[in-house]
Amino acid sequence: MLKKNLEKYADLAVKIGANVKKDQTVVINAAVTTYDLTRIIAKKCYEAGAKEVVVRYRDEEIQHQLLLHSPTEVLEHIPEWLINSILDYVKEGAAIINVASEDPGLLADVDPERFKLHNLALRKSSKEYMEYIMKGITCWTVVTYPNEAWAKKVFPDLSVDEAIEKLWDNIFSATRTSEENPIEAWNNHMGNLERRIDFLNEKAFDKLIYKAPGTDLEVKLPEGHLWIGGGQKSEDGHQFLPNIPTEEVFTTPHKYGVNGTLRSTMPLSYNGNLIEGFSFTFKDGKVVDFHAEKGYDVLKDMINTDEGASYLGEVALVPHDSPISNTGLIFYNTLYDENASCHFAVGSAYLLSVKGGPDMSEEEKDTNGINHSLTHVDFMVGSPDLDIIGITTSGEEVQIFKDGNWAF
Amino acid sequence: MLKKNLEKYADLAVKIGANVKKDQTVVINAAVTTYDLTRIIAKKCYEAGAKEVVVRYRDEEIQHQLLLHSPTEVLEHIPEWLINSILDYVKEGAAIINVASEDPGLLADVDPERFKLHNLALRKSSKEYMEYIMKGITCWTVVTYPNEAWAKKVFPDLSVDEAIEKLWDNIFSATRTSEENPIEAWNNHMGNLERRIDFLNEKAFDKLIYKAPGTDLEVKLPEGHLWIGGGQKSEDGHQFLPNIPTEEVFTTPHKYGVNGTLRSTMPLSYNGNLIEGFSFTFKDGKVVDFHAEKGYDVLKDMINTDEGASYLGEVALVPHDSPISNTGLIFYNTLYDENASCHFAVGSAYLLSVKGGPDMSEEEKDTNGINHSLTHVDFMVGSPDLDIIGITTSGEEVQIFKDGNWAF
Repeated sequence: MLKKNLEKYADLAVKIGANVKKDQTVVINAAVTTYDLTRIIAKKCYEAGAKEVVVRYRDEEIQHQLLLHSPTEVLEHIPEWLINSILDYVKEGAAIINVASEDPGLLADVDPERFKLHNLALRKSSKEYMEYIMKGITCWTVVTYPNEAWAKKVFPDLSVDEAIEKLWDNIFSATRTSEENPIEAWNNHMGNLERRIDFLNEKAFDKLIYKAPGTDLEVKLPEGHLWIGGGQKSEDGHQFLPNIPTEEVFTTPHKYGVNGTLRSTMPLSYNGNLIEGFSFTFKDGKVVDFHAEKGYDVLKDMINTDEGASYLGEVALVPHDSPISNTGLIFYNTLYDENASCHFAVGSAYLLSVKGGPDMSEEEKDTNGINHSLTHVDFMVGSPDLDIIGITTSGEEVQIFKDGNWAF
Repeated sequence: MLKKNLEKYADLAVKIGANVKKDQTVVINAAVTTYDLTRIIAKKCYEAGAKEVVVRYRDEEIQHQLLLHSPTEVLEHIPEWLINSILDYVKEGAAIINVASEDPGLLADVDPERFKLHNLALRKSSKEYMEYIMKGITCWTVVTYPNEAWAKKVFPDLSVDEAIEKLWDNIFSATRTSEENPIEAWNNHMGNLERRIDFLNEKAFDKLIYKAPGTDLEVKLPEGHLWIGGGQKSEDGHQFLPNIPTEEVFTTPHKYGVNGTLRSTMPLSYNGNLIEGFSFTFKDGKVVDFHAEKGYDVLKDMINTDEGASYLGEVALVPHDSPISNTGLIFYNTLYDENASCHFAVGSAYLLSVKGGPDMSEEEKDTNGINHSLTHVDFMVGSPDLDIIGITTSGEEVQIFKDGNWAF
């Protein structure tokens, strides 16, 4: 049963996710523990006509040891070969499949200063690669794979084996893998998302008003913003699905047009650290105050990564009544939790979420209110109490969300 | 129990094998399936004072798919980043730990021509790296890890789990890991090997005569040859142990001084292909005729890799009564099988096995009868019937091996 579902899950990653083309190179970035699934994905890439599948295994436990023990000059230095091991391929048109398996608490014993140093070096070194992602040149996707620590975090009362099995079950439901024809199910779902997107883009709202307990926020949307979600199209018109699963439609807020307060509704697992019960206060887009019941210092480092990290770069709408949300689980994993809940991100905007975004200079981005940063971190704000009203440039008010769900 | 033995095994790799120095970088080349052991080894490297541990995971199943499906231009191209991912580190003095886990039959369905093409490209691309190994500049070691296919090959009648457990048991015995103090046991064993080596070097034999069923061979040894084995010393005098386990003492034969016939006594697993029941006939060093009951074409490709691949580059002495041999097993793995048996290798000589070897030009090597090749493949010739006589330059005859064991 697991084997059959792994085959179907791999199919989704290759055919719906990266949508691998004939004669394309595919780079799979895979957690080392996922090699059984990764091998199936590679096989299906070749079946889809890939000319080469390059697998870059990474081991977060090895990374953990580096963060604990290596001197700072090692943490600050990202070797050229490592940068080229992905950049050389995307430059030549490769697709990327990420097979992620994160232990949400692994880095809890790492000195935040050392983490920050290394993380900043990594982000700087992947700047050129991230442009291929953010500009929609590269087709890419991410799927997720359970591990012991993660499964026990989600199901603390089960045995390890039961917890992993139950997490797989929920992953297969949430990703529609357990449906008889997952590819058809995804095509239907993407059609539904497209209809929401068309409505929002037609209205071209000037601003959104968020109201919920602890949240009273006005979010200006920049001129030319585009709601996107579900499937995306690459620069050359090739359809792909960046996130499996995905339930969100999203755009970019105006970098300097966010005012008020915003309370998170779910814990945030940030690079192996948990941040809980946190809130932000914005003035003219910038975070001017923030609180956290747990992980305050990690949150502080996160929004101080660079100038853009203390401004928003994404606003995303997800009904509270969604397949993932309906599992009733907190997954302690952004890919799942963000698709169970309306959310924002601090940091870089997706350049495809504004007209002409991929061709804007740094200066044009700033003038148009498009945030730019080395980081991009989602955090959740959805709840059954969330109302969102859209206001058009002509002053028309449209209820977008009512009690946490789509109102239209 | 397994966990405790893994810790001791990892200790051997770090303290006796690579003998990691303070502030050294360590590169671990690890099969993806070995991540539990690899993580322990990495941890012990940091405990030994390593400044950085870089793990390069490789997946032979992904390699297998590449060999089956990728076009030849992909097989012929080894990317620059992959070469630099090891070369950059050895240039700066890194130690290398290899954690190998080979499926001895995995590549049986690969077209030998395609394999040869890719293998040649890999060997060419690692030429500079191999010089650091062959010249003894880099401290390195290799340990082995079971896998399902390998365990079932060694123990075809056991269940998978039992076969893996039994293979671990034999690995732990053969590597002295199961002894109470493995590090002390290795220090003693290396001392014993050293005494054999001193005797052989003192005699400085002109030639060796091999006699066994199907074997009647004269092997000239070059002037200045050095018997080595067990621990080695790097260029800068640091002790390391390249192979865990190791029972052999070895030197280089004279490239142009081998004459007669030589019959293998064990199957050879060559890059995932099995060659069985094979023999060579040499004239002035070169293989002028060869036979194989199984894998003839693979053997042919092997000795045709380049010019040096049809000449010998290593002569190694191992008593038939050795811990590995005494397991009575065929391991289908060169590291084990070569240490259960006297053997030779076709291809490149270890430059440390001749005085001044590391500093010789290509021309000097050839004049001195030191073989040079992109390849180096061991094959077994030991048996209870093997006799070896050494003849000194003054004509003194010394019985070195009698009935497969040391005669002195």
